[in-house]
Amino acid sequence: MSKGTVVLAYSGGLDTSCILVWLKEQGYDVIAYLANIGQDEDFDEARLKAEKLGAKKVFIEDLRGEFVEEFIWPSVQANAIYEDRYLLGTSVARPCIARRQVQIAQREGAQYVSHGATGKGNDQVRFELTCYALYPEVKIISPWRIPEFFNRFRGRKDLMEYANEHDIPVPVTPKAPWSMDANLMHISYESGILENPKTHAPVDLYLMTKNPEDSPNTPDVLEIEFLKAGGIPTCVKVDSLKVIYGSIVNLICMISLFYLNSGKHGVGRIDIVENRFIGMKSRGIYETPGGTILYQAHLDIETFTMDKEVRRIKQGLGITFSELIYNGFWFSPECAFVRDCIARSQENVEGKVQLSVFKGQVYMLGRESPKSLYNEELVSMDVQGDYDPCDASGFIKINAVRLREHHRLQGLSGSKK
Amino acid sequence: MSKGTVVLAYSGGLDTSCILVWLKEQGYDVIAYLANIGQDEDFDEARLKAEKLGAKKVFIEDLRGEFVEEFIWPSVQANAIYEDRYLLGTSVARPCIARRQVQIAQREGAQYVSHGATGKGNDQVRFELTCYALYPEVKIISPWRIPEFFNRFRGRKDLMEYANEHDIPVPVTPKAPWSMDANLMHISYESGILENPKTHAPVDLYLMTKNPEDSPNTPDVLEIEFLKAGGIPTCVKVDSLKVIYGSIVNLICMISLFYLNSGKHGVGRIDIVENRFIGMKSRGIYETPGGTILYQAHLDIETFTMDKEVRRIKQGLGITFSELIYNGFWFSPECAFVRDCIARSQENVEGKVQLSVFKGQVYMLGRESPKSLYNEELVSMDVQGDYDPCDASGFIKINAVRLREHHRLQGLSGSKK
Amino acid sequence: MSKGTVVLAYSGGLDTSCILVWLKEQGYDVIAYLANIGQDEDFDEARLKAEKLGAKKVFIEDLRGEFVEEFIWPSVQANAIYEDRYLLGTSVARPCIARRQVQIAQREGAQYVSHGATGKGNDQVRFELTCYALYPEVKIISPWRIPEFFNRFRGRKDLMEYANEHDIPVPVTPKAPWSMDANLMHISYESGILENPKTHAPVDLYLMTKNPEDSPNTPDVLEIEFLKAGGIPTCVKVDSLKVIYGSIVNLICMISLFYLNSGKHGVGRIDIVENRFIGMKSRGIYETPGGTILYQAHLDIETFTMDKEVRRIKQGLGITFSELIYNGFWFSPECAFVRDCIARSQENVEGKVQLSVFKGQVYMLGRESPKSLYNEELVSMDVQGDYDPCDASGFIKINAVRLREHHRLQGLSGSKK
Amino acid sequence: MSKGTVVLAYSGGLDTSCILVWLKEQGYDVIAYLANIGQDEDFDEARLKAEKLGAKKVFIEDLRGEFVEEFIWPSVQANAIYEDRYLLGTSVARPCIARRQVQIAQREGAQYVSHGATGKGNDQVRFELTCYALYPEVKIISPWRIPEFFNRFRGRKDLMEYANEHDIPVPVTPKAPWSMDANLMHISYESGILENPKTHAPVDLYLMTKNPEDSPNTPDVLEIEFLKAGGIPTCVKVDSLKVIYGSIVNLICMISLFYLNSGKHGVGRIDIVENRFIGMKSRGIYETPGGTILYQAHLDIETFTMDKEVRRIKQGLGITFSELIYNGFWFSPECAFVRDCIARSQENVEGKVQLSVFKGQVYMLGRESPKSLYNEELVSMDVQGDYDPCDASGFIKINAVRLREHHRLQGLSGSKK
Repeated sequence: MSKGTVVLAYSGGLDTSCILVWLKEQGYDVIAYLANIGQDEDFDEARLKAEKLGAKKVFIEDLRGEFVEEFIWPSVQANAIYEDRYLLGTSVARPCIARRQVQIAQREGAQYVSHGATGKGNDQVRFELTCYALYPEVKIISPWRIPEFFNRFRGRKDLMEYANEHDIPVPVTPKAPWSMDANLMHISYESGILENPKTHAPVDLYLMTKNPEDSPNTPDVLEIEFLKAGGIPTCVKVDSLKVIYGSIVNLICMISLFYLNSGKHGVGRIDIVENRFIGMKSRGIYETPGGTILYQAHLDIETFTMDKEVRRIKQGLGITFSELIYNGFWFSPECAFVRDCIARSQENVEGKVQLSVFKGQVYMLGRESPKSLYNEELVSMDVQGDYDPCDASGFIKINAVRLREHHRLQGLSGSKK
Repeated sequence: MSKGTVVLAYSGGLDTSCILVWLKEQGYDVIAYLANIGQDEDFDEARLKAEKLGAKKVFIEDLRGEFVEEFIWPSVQANAIYEDRYLLGTSVARPCIARRQVQIAQREGAQYVSHGATGKGNDQVRFELTCYALYPEVKIISPWRIPEFFNRFRGRKDLMEYANEHDIPVPVTPKAPWSMDANLMHISYESGILENPKTHAPVDLYLMTKNPEDSPNTPDVLEIEFLKAGGIPTCVKVDSLKVIYGSIVNLICMISLFYLNSGKHGVGRIDIVENRFIGMKSRGIYETPGGTILYQAHLDIETFTMDKEVRRIKQGLGITFSELIYNGFWFSPECAFVRDCIARSQENVEGKVQLSVFKGQVYMLGRESPKSLYNEELVSMDVQGDYDPCDASGFIKINAVRLREHHRLQGLSGSKK
Repeated sequence: MSKGTVVLAYSGGLDTSCILVWLKEQGYDVIAYLANIGQDEDFDEARLKAEKLGAKKVFIEDLRGEFVEEFIWPSVQANAIYEDRYLLGTSVARPCIARRQVQIAQREGAQYVSHGATGKGNDQVRFELTCYALYPEVKIISPWRIPEFFNRFRGRKDLMEYANEHDIPVPVTPKAPWSMDANLMHISYESGILENPKTHAPVDLYLMTKNPEDSPNTPDVLEIEFLKAGGIPTCVKVDSLKVIYGSIVNLICMISLFYLNSGKHGVGRIDIVENRFIGMKSRGIYETPGGTILYQAHLDIETFTMDKEVRRIKQGLGITFSELIYNGFWFSPECAFVRDCIARSQENVEGKVQLSVFKGQVYMLGRESPKSLYNEELVSMDVQGDYDPCDASGFIKINAVRLREHHRLQGLSGSKK
Repeated sequence: MSKGTVVLAYSGGLDTSCILVWLKEQGYDVIAYLANIGQDEDFDEARLKAEKLGAKKVFIEDLRGEFVEEFIWPSVQANAIYEDRYLLGTSVARPCIARRQVQIAQREGAQYVSHGATGKGNDQVRFELTCYALYPEVKIISPWRIPEFFNRFRGRKDLMEYANEHDIPVPVTPKAPWSMDANLMHISYESGILENPKTHAPVDLYLMTKNPEDSPNTPDVLEIEFLKAGGIPTCVKVDSLKVIYGSIVNLICMISLFYLNSGKHGVGRIDIVENRFIGMKSRGIYETPGGTILYQAHLDIETFTMDKEVRRIKQGLGITFSELIYNGFWFSPECAFVRDCIARSQENVEGKVQLSVFKGQVYMLGRESPKSLYNEELVSMDVQGDYDPCDASGFIKINAVRLREHHRLQGLSGSKK
């Protein structure tokens, strides 16, 4: 008698392979689910492995298109960045993966979902809040939070032993002394030797970007075009090569953007300490080559085309949005609300940005837009334009009314600050 | 009969030299005042020139110490940045310069102050709000906003003619086709050919930083130490060289920091369109080598040592502070209030940051602090520490209560979002 | 030869009558424009008076419908309130009036608009920003800021003399020692004897509301219904009387709401000091009977139906919106943006609120909604519902992780806070 | 063998009496702790009862002074209000009570604390976050979240039975069909028949305030004085009676304020639906007579004396502070930070406010202060003062620069908004 069916977010690695077998051992039918969000993976081999381990069904789902269109683009529109530095590459992937997971669970009549995220991290929260939000009745099995599991598997050695006992293939190459997570947008590295915040990251850690010391000695000049309908990058030209963004070629565009240009120049490496939702500080190293370029390019075209005060309000919403994404609330009413507000702000965000990438850095070179609020004549030091400089005197004096009153009060109270 | 005495913010250049003579022509006694805030200038020559042009008195004031301590440091503590990109190098200098100007005016019994800022820019606002705030009765003569002046001097040619007529020495080298402003922290470039936002900046524009293409092919590794009493960088070590920050050597430290290390590596160049306080968009190019490194270093040590939620609140205050500085409200009750709040937030911001600078980019390498809230055992994936992973289940489920209710409501209303 | 045509916002009173004649004296053709926004006024008499004074044309425009639908409702949706107390009754009327004024100017080919607002107030800003935003080329004649005008008319006596000289009918009743402004939503009182912030308002000042001491000794119970499509009050039932809101009867509804019920009970009187946009503090007394009830009712139904976190974000937007309205930026890109965001937040704000009004106070009695997120079973102390109390332990302990770390750090540093 | 010592927050009621006995049954030594925060209670009787039930020790602690000075005053300074309506009377009491509880636990060497708060409410969070923050190693026993307890006591009947079995005195009067919580500042009512948000509250529910229908037919006029050192109310004069606030008489002042004046006039009743921290909506009825008056009075004196822009920033901090208090984070680094910032903002908040209370409503009548930024001459419509109305033209035109540019762009794009 089966206890029921579990849809397991399966990665093909040692942890989730052991979890798959352990879940079966506990009496569940297991459906293995593996999302393709652009990571470097042999999906066929993973399918075979899951089947061999006893998965009732295996779903390998190509989510790259929806990942880019529904999750990465809104983040680019928001200039989403967590704690001033982290571009949220992992955070935006989790709701995308978990949404399909519960869709499969609902379609297959499974009452349970399971994942291999640890009990101290952010990902457990991101996965599970998505599941509860979209499938409120779901039951979640989180082995790394179940004492029978985590007390049995206290280290990698225990997992290896269990694998050997249960005919689970074990990795032949030794594990790097840190953990990593990769997708179209970025790779993150954490744990292991990186847990000491003072320790410098090894030179050979980075897989997605070239070491700037070894990257080309001449810059590449890019042009990124944001087309009508709001702040969405639609086209990347590299020198003579021009790639048009559209419904079909978006991934080509992404790949061209993410791999060819930016990783080549070592753009987007950061080494930070961040504050997890669950209240711990952790150290993370990230490389987000294309995302870093898109962030800079969007920031530039947005400031060029958006009204100053709309920008201020939208900046605040973007910070809120970033925190919501980081904390796992992508599928929440407030995140939907903020997303809609931000989309509204992008109405006129349209135009071309020229930039160069070189040795890990992005340099804006120029920008143009049919929707710009930039008025060259108005701002010119050489032309008066439709502007009377005398007005500025009144503007300044009225702004000073309050400051002069404050000074008067200080004089009265005898203390000057 | 003199109309009264004017303290003129004098730069030694063509504009303010003409203004000096023109003010005399209008019947004022003129005191020339030139602040040394670290720009590259022959101050003795400027003094002689002002005297020759008929200044009643000339004050050359070395403000570098107070500029660093009272204006740059609070900005570093705030992670002050305007519209996500501009480090406010000019904005923080203006109140420093104008404060001394009104102090001189009060001491010398002058009722007037004057400056050469244009009628379309931010600097007029920053100068004058400072003057009104600290010397509310002052009268300000702003020639570029007075029709008799700006109608007479419609271009550089008119100024040159006037100079020739009045024995004002004219520059021998041709003027660059843009204007610039320099101080310890940065150089800004704007106007002229830069007014077209699409035009790329000429390669030879930058004076403070090396072109990253020509900068050294090996990184420099720095260590910056922030000492007790809150988020103030106190020491920079470059390889074997260690410079201690203290009351006397702060400028040495600044110079070592700003010139030796960072400009050499081409750090801190940006090319942006920004929103001026008076409602125009303008294009500015800035190079802020040391400021960029300090920004990154302080951000790192702050996130390492400051509580997550304090950081969130402080981040919002920092944005407010940046806008206030940009708009010229340094000497306002709200800016004093925010500055005090931010200073309060820095109580535990203390420690060392290791970083490398290379080809225009700053890379954080590691950090350590006696006041860190980072708990290596707590966060470790290999050690349970004083943490029960089961707690996370409850945490997530309670956070999901609201999301599940929202889903229920959507089900009722028949529309799923 | 006419200097051109001016559309003057004409009130029928002494000030704008003198301005009308003065403008003609200056050589302008004058079109008198008077908006009906619900104030108590003899519009026919005002028309005759303007014609007699030499207005080329007179437009009396009934704006009550658009005032309610386009200006009051969005403010109700936003819970708009300035500095925690003022319900913005004057602020929302100004853009409504000025919009029609520039529409008339454009239709009639007038290059000028004029108004009688003083040079120290908020209304000049609200009028003129609206004019510039909607008709950027317009020229504005603001007599109370023109030295020839304000130096000539230094007090009421000068206006009276001028009126007598130019056959302008003067008021027969003596002017109250304060100024007032009335519309559908409220009446404001300021200036004159009210300028001393310590002086109590005279008992006979209030025109719209009964003195609570004289109001009925039994409460009225109201039911206000907010219908689908977001937070708009659509129906008010008073005891047996039920008024349905719809496209035609909205004014009836408004009148019933504003006059019959609330003024009768003395609701909505406030006496405050507020901060004007131009940097002064001023004292204002307002009575907003219906607006106060609507504010309370909408707040109640909104909290009942809106997700907690959406509410938090929307609350911030509402504060921004209120400041924008107060400062005169109704027709600005940022105000349009915020208005759209707030409208989006109202999707599920729908239901009925029961309340009683009595002696100046509004008491919420109960509420119901088909869209409520209130779950009686979930929250019940007597039923467990779909809620496991054990989850709260984990929730609390994870929330405490950060606090315990902070305590640890304090222990280390030897200072407990 | 005892399992250890528990300090139980004991109320003297049925629930915590049963918990006391149950804890002993489980093998713990129990110290009963009862805080006097101004509720109406026979403390001697409670002590006897606890002793009789087997408490090892009983502590009755008079916390009224510190409750007022350390918890209520900072809330008054912040204008603390949750979701625009709730004055946080229960929320500020919890950290005050729990702080003393852990102090006792530490002093008595107890490893455990316990309380009778339910598993669905806010109070469990407020109690426990305080405990963890101040005594990180503490273990918390929360019976209403322990299955053995809550499954055994499924309703009041089970508790009564248990009481009868264990000689626990049971209440002789029938329990009201709702629960309530009282302290110096307010009484709250929730649960039971109030759980239906549509049900009107019974007329006889309120214990602290008179029904406005029965309250005096003439207003009382009060004067509240806020003395130097920031926004703290120090004196209340009622007609001829003047009570001076000081270190000793503060409670007298409080009592006079809270009971004599305001409850008498029925001030401070609200009936709301609110969002609990744990994600549920709940219905609460509160009466906060003195707190409501203090809120209004402080708001008035603050706006009168505080700079406009400081006020804006402080308003945002006050909202944050209110959420922190509501959610139980009084003893958190961010709450300490915000409290210090708010205290800094109160430097000049000093002066007298005159107000009247009548039939449930508070009316501001006038205010005066030696520190006011109100400048009667500056704002006067009859005196020009040190203000040039012409400046306003420039102020408005510069503010319009951006709006006119936006209009230009809309013209280009062909869509007007």
